[in-house]
Amino acid sequence: MGEFDLIARIRARAPTRADVLLGIGDDAALLLPPAGLQLVVAMDTLNAGVHFPPATAPADIGWKALAVNLSDLAAMGAQPAWCTLSLSMPEAQAGFVDGFLDGFLALAAQYDVALVGGDTTRGPLSVCVAVHGLVEPGMALRRDGARAGDEVWVSGSVGDAAAALVQWKEGCKGGQLGCPAEAQPDPLSLALRARLDRPTPRVALGRALRGVASACIDVSDGLLADLGHVCAASGVAATVDVDALPASEALRASFSSEHRRHLQATGGDDYELCFSAAADAHAVVLRAAATAAVAVTRIGRILPGAGVAAHTADTDPWSAPATGWVHFA
Amino acid sequence: MGEFDLIARIRARAPTRADVLLGIGDDAALLLPPAGLQLVVAMDTLNAGVHFPPATAPADIGWKALAVNLSDLAAMGAQPAWCTLSLSMPEAQAGFVDGFLDGFLALAAQYDVALVGGDTTRGPLSVCVAVHGLVEPGMALRRDGARAGDEVWVSGSVGDAAAALVQWKEGCKGGQLGCPAEAQPDPLSLALRARLDRPTPRVALGRALRGVASACIDVSDGLLADLGHVCAASGVAATVDVDALPASEALRASFSSEHRRHLQATGGDDYELCFSAAADAHAVVLRAAATAAVAVTRIGRILPGAGVAAHTADTDPWSAPATGWVHFA
Repeated sequence: MGEFDLIARIRARAPTRADVLLGIGDDAALLLPPAGLQLVVAMDTLNAGVHFPPATAPADIGWKALAVNLSDLAAMGAQPAWCTLSLSMPEAQAGFVDGFLDGFLALAAQYDVALVGGDTTRGPLSVCVAVHGLVEPGMALRRDGARAGDEVWVSGSVGDAAAALVQWKEGCKGGQLGCPAEAQPDPLSLALRARLDRPTPRVALGRALRGVASACIDVSDGLLADLGHVCAASGVAATVDVDALPASEALRASFSSEHRRHLQATGGDDYELCFSAAADAHAVVLRAAATAAVAVTRIGRILPGAGVAAHTADTDPWSAPATGWVHFA
Repeated sequence: MGEFDLIARIRARAPTRADVLLGIGDDAALLLPPAGLQLVVAMDTLNAGVHFPPATAPADIGWKALAVNLSDLAAMGAQPAWCTLSLSMPEAQAGFVDGFLDGFLALAAQYDVALVGGDTTRGPLSVCVAVHGLVEPGMALRRDGARAGDEVWVSGSVGDAAAALVQWKEGCKGGQLGCPAEAQPDPLSLALRARLDRPTPRVALGRALRGVASACIDVSDGLLADLGHVCAASGVAATVDVDALPASEALRASFSSEHRRHLQATGGDDYELCFSAAADAHAVVLRAAATAAVAVTRIGRILPGAGVAAHTADTDPWSAPATGWVHFA
């Protein structure tokens, strides 16, 4: 299968939209941005062995490559519209491409995202995706709007993706997900692994938080690290109650509370939204989250100053400042 | 140097524009597309050892990564506006990044392109760039507008980049360009190598051809192959006079006429524009090219049918149909 066969294969399945004048098949795509909206653009690459375990299923790679990009749009409060895909592979395998597209296009369909261009090239397995979204003027959620006194929130639960990575490194409890066939699939581990392989971009929540959140970021590097980015951009500090961080049942059941809280506070790749909002907007935040059908949890507060301080009522030694993660600035 | 140091290093040098509300440093960029224009989006990846020799200078990699993308905008007649950059490297080396940016940003400055986002990741050396341009409604140059009777044109000269690749594979006549230090730099080879490493995107020509060219493509796969894409999209055939293909002095001086014409007809990576225009627009084409200060040469004609036929007055055996490139459809 040559490059042009590959492109034809992708083109035949690529979804389009009314605002796409020209999609895959020319030197560039031709799009009609609606009048009066601002354009929101993000680009993220996933490399094999760095951003996903090498044996990850092709459909999961496809899903995740788009999901991490849509998550960036979600963190801006933008409505996804179009994407481009650059797929580098050691060799052009129809089976891999078909599987990849299964995952990529399933997620694209959920958010009415048109795949309008890109390229396929020979090289080590790597996926680069650029996404384009739209947002009303002045309504984008940014990192620089957090103010002292605001409350800090996080959506869903955190720590699952990092937990799955730990389990994968420990010996593939995940069974069929790229691990030795003799390993028994373990439902709890599979639940964690699904969070790593198929993250849910919080697009509806990001949209619902327009005009509500004062700042927002998606949790990709780790909760404390990402909140640190918000604090740096906003010129404020934050304090986080580690005991308040939401955990999934699978995470609670699979790790000690000490290990779990470490994963929740510092593990990345969950793609939840961490955001700040005025304290008197507490009820508004909960209503917005209900609209988006996503749970949100208040986990801390914005303060004057700089840096992120994490607190816990627990007296385990790991929670002492010397462990390095308690004060992350 | 960590990821955030790298991003800070890039951000400090990234050019911006008045229509960039938010550039590098948030989850996504926030852009203001001007009312009444269409958005043109392209994305291309360069992988080390596939799209450039591994020892290519970092500045040349940076230049080329943006150039091949701007060339796609040129082929659409679009005015470049913004770009995003995803840079994968085995390790974060300040020297490499600085050199890369030297080349990338020198070209960005020439076309007033703002670098608004992207990411830096660990992985085999690979550069993915997405570019965004603007074009007036109905004025984009496409591949599907060629009509029987049109003339076929190409800008500049073709074959130099492929010639440089041949020389590099033959043993690095290019001297300091990543070859053994004892090799003598050869001015002719350096001239060819510059075409491979620092292609010139024909942006001004593409703009000047709006309303003039009936179809357009940039020469990346090879002249006959790329013209074949135009013919396939337009539902027409083309005939090309190989003897008319423009050649640089360096190419004429370095290769036999037989080898040279093969490189011109089938070598890729020159990033010239190949376009069609009505036969009675001959003078208009020449005026447009003069406006853009780029030479253009008439090299063939569009016919009813399908496929690309290449003709030569020469009777060298290589030009016989059996060599495979004379009829390329």
